[in-house]
Amino acid sequence: MPNIYLDNAATTRIDERALEAMLPFLRENFGNASAKYYEMGKIARRAVLKARQQVSALINAVKPEDEDRVNELVFTACATESNNWVIKTVPLIDPEKNHIITSSIEHHSVLETCEFMVKNHGAQLTVLYVDQYGQVSPDDLRDAMRPNTGLVSIMTANNEVGTIQPVKELARIAHDGGALFHTDAVQAAGKIKIDVQDWDVDFLSLSGHKFHAPKGVGALYIRKGTRLRPFMSGGGQEGGRRAGTLNVAGIVGMGEAAEIAVGKIEELDPRLRAMTEKLWKGISASVPKVHRNGHPDNRLPNILNVRFEGAEGEAILLRLDMFGIQVASGSACSTGDITPSHVLMAMGIPQEDVHGSIRFSLSRDTTDEDIEKTLEILPAQVQLIRDMSVTWNG
Amino acid sequence: MPNIYLDNAATTRIDERALEAMLPFLRENFGNASAKYYEMGKIARRAVLKARQQVSALINAVKPEDEDRVNELVFTACATESNNWVIKTVPLIDPEKNHIITSSIEHHSVLETCEFMVKNHGAQLTVLYVDQYGQVSPDDLRDAMRPNTGLVSIMTANNEVGTIQPVKELARIAHDGGALFHTDAVQAAGKIKIDVQDWDVDFLSLSGHKFHAPKGVGALYIRKGTRLRPFMSGGGQEGGRRAGTLNVAGIVGMGEAAEIAVGKIEELDPRLRAMTEKLWKGISASVPKVHRNGHPDNRLPNILNVRFEGAEGEAILLRLDMFGIQVASGSACSTGDITPSHVLMAMGIPQEDVHGSIRFSLSRDTTDEDIEKTLEILPAQVQLIRDMSVTWNG
Repeated sequence: MPNIYLDNAATTRIDERALEAMLPFLRENFGNASAKYYEMGKIARRAVLKARQQVSALINAVKPEDEDRVNELVFTACATESNNWVIKTVPLIDPEKNHIITSSIEHHSVLETCEFMVKNHGAQLTVLYVDQYGQVSPDDLRDAMRPNTGLVSIMTANNEVGTIQPVKELARIAHDGGALFHTDAVQAAGKIKIDVQDWDVDFLSLSGHKFHAPKGVGALYIRKGTRLRPFMSGGGQEGGRRAGTLNVAGIVGMGEAAEIAVGKIEELDPRLRAMTEKLWKGISASVPKVHRNGHPDNRLPNILNVRFEGAEGEAILLRLDMFGIQVASGSACSTGDITPSHVLMAMGIPQEDVHGSIRFSLSRDTTDEDIEKTLEILPAQVQLIRDMSVTWNG
Repeated sequence: MPNIYLDNAATTRIDERALEAMLPFLRENFGNASAKYYEMGKIARRAVLKARQQVSALINAVKPEDEDRVNELVFTACATESNNWVIKTVPLIDPEKNHIITSSIEHHSVLETCEFMVKNHGAQLTVLYVDQYGQVSPDDLRDAMRPNTGLVSIMTANNEVGTIQPVKELARIAHDGGALFHTDAVQAAGKIKIDVQDWDVDFLSLSGHKFHAPKGVGALYIRKGTRLRPFMSGGGQEGGRRAGTLNVAGIVGMGEAAEIAVGKIEELDPRLRAMTEKLWKGISASVPKVHRNGHPDNRLPNILNVRFEGAEGEAILLRLDMFGIQVASGSACSTGDITPSHVLMAMGIPQEDVHGSIRFSLSRDTTDEDIEKTLEILPAQVQLIRDMSVTWNG
């Protein structure tokens, strides 16, 4: 049976070189990076500095030059922490600036955190609609800005359909209105070029495991000079910005994976784009009544989201799994939850079609053979599910 | 040159068996544990369940029986997160119960988080004094309880001097006064028996890397039926209690390390105790004007804290490092900070002696030879530092 993993937007395989870089820190070099005065601590500190430089390069942040300065990049446990950090602390700085603007297609760790701030801290919230492709309109943001808007949080690219947002323009509008701008760049990292300086964002969230680093490590870019309260209080780690013993091995893995990723984006983009196009063409040629969700061009190269009329997404998942093909329906982050995807709903897709949507997400590990095998197996499985359906009348 | 690592209270070496258990999840079994519908996700889910059972056993929590229930144990990124979670959310549940009681010898991630709640959320705070051994008095807690006390947080055992607190009695007093009880058991785990049911605590924080699991993974015990708001909002992971993609490999490592630790406590206790006693006897016999910090008996078996009159702790650290001996002064968590240890200050030790205090912390990796080598090298180094000191008149 083949093992075809097409759920790379949920998580990716650790790059073998990143793992090799990590192993000494899981074995002999196990020192605490807070220990300044002995050799094993110093080894850990140097490794963290190198990783911070590598991840800074991935997003064009200012690189730190010594172990005592984090500069613009703080390591966290995951992007959920990075997103919670910004959204749960920025609106508390100034009660006169407690209006948050976000979009209806954000990840749960942004949307639910915004709602948490409304419910528990009296924040005000505007959730921007998106168009049929999942795009936020800069005009809508301009119209939503108020004198008390303190924070705008719009993702770089969507995790379910891959649509890319006009982040640079949105950041400018936020700044013009006196607000800080945050973007969740989890899915974009390693897929498209990220440039915090050109985009002029204040905060940007990253997750290692989406670009072939291990799970359990993320980062938050904080533009130099930007005020931000700690989210995790305690020891003075990370220049006093984020307490907690540093996950040295995870950080080293994230650094190495960032360096590998940044060098591959240009070569990888056309290859992934060709594979997702091939997959879409193959599906649409062999399966009737299918539609593509998300923007056809202005999208991440590795995500294809397809809705199959008259077929439950979960049924497709289960059938494909029997053939070793691993894909997702809705957001794989939501613990196998079968409530319809809020992203597809926000794009105006009818609920019954949302349930029939499948996300295929590729990575540099994906081969042409994976795509071909999927195209061999998928059409008959969809047909089988439709044949069993009492509502399908295709 | 020997490599003698005596800073195991800062972090420990990953047990090779724990690492072996992790490796498949850093390689081929890299699935997201939220993916319920395909094989690789299911493999991850089963592994997390097993680890949750293993860590639950370490503290005698009720073991979960299926992948969909966390029962009493939620995985976090570190104990700093666990401590922040409890202290930053419990006092917000009921504004009539926003008085927190803690002790003066807590870890920074408890003390600074309590202070954060005072500064930012109008919480009230009582910090209990400790005696010369670093012990909290149950009578003091009883006296400090107020009608609006909502949370009492007292550590199980101290990270700098190892003194053990009467947690069971303290929890009872907190409950009698209508407050919830939290204990930071980071240093105690794997060193002494922890029994959340017998102790009747509501929350207990754990960190993997203090008992030979990797860095980047911790846990929070939450007694069944206890209300607790999420600290990390987002996806529905961990039964909706803690969002963020699960660090499967780290969790597996923590589980395996917990299972190894729980089976070794009885055998390990006398061995560690004998080694710390041998070290103390050797130091006090060969170095004049030394004192032991912390309780001589009611303590963790692996920590010995010694103050050397007329010698700077940092100078001792640097000299010992030249001979491959790695120890700590004050709390190693505080990024090489040279402000005097708040724990030793709280015990009434004069500031100049606090600066001359060294923590030796052992683990099951420590050998008798490590102790003998340390005793060969240390006395001459202390003498050398004292000889260079302008204030030493020993």
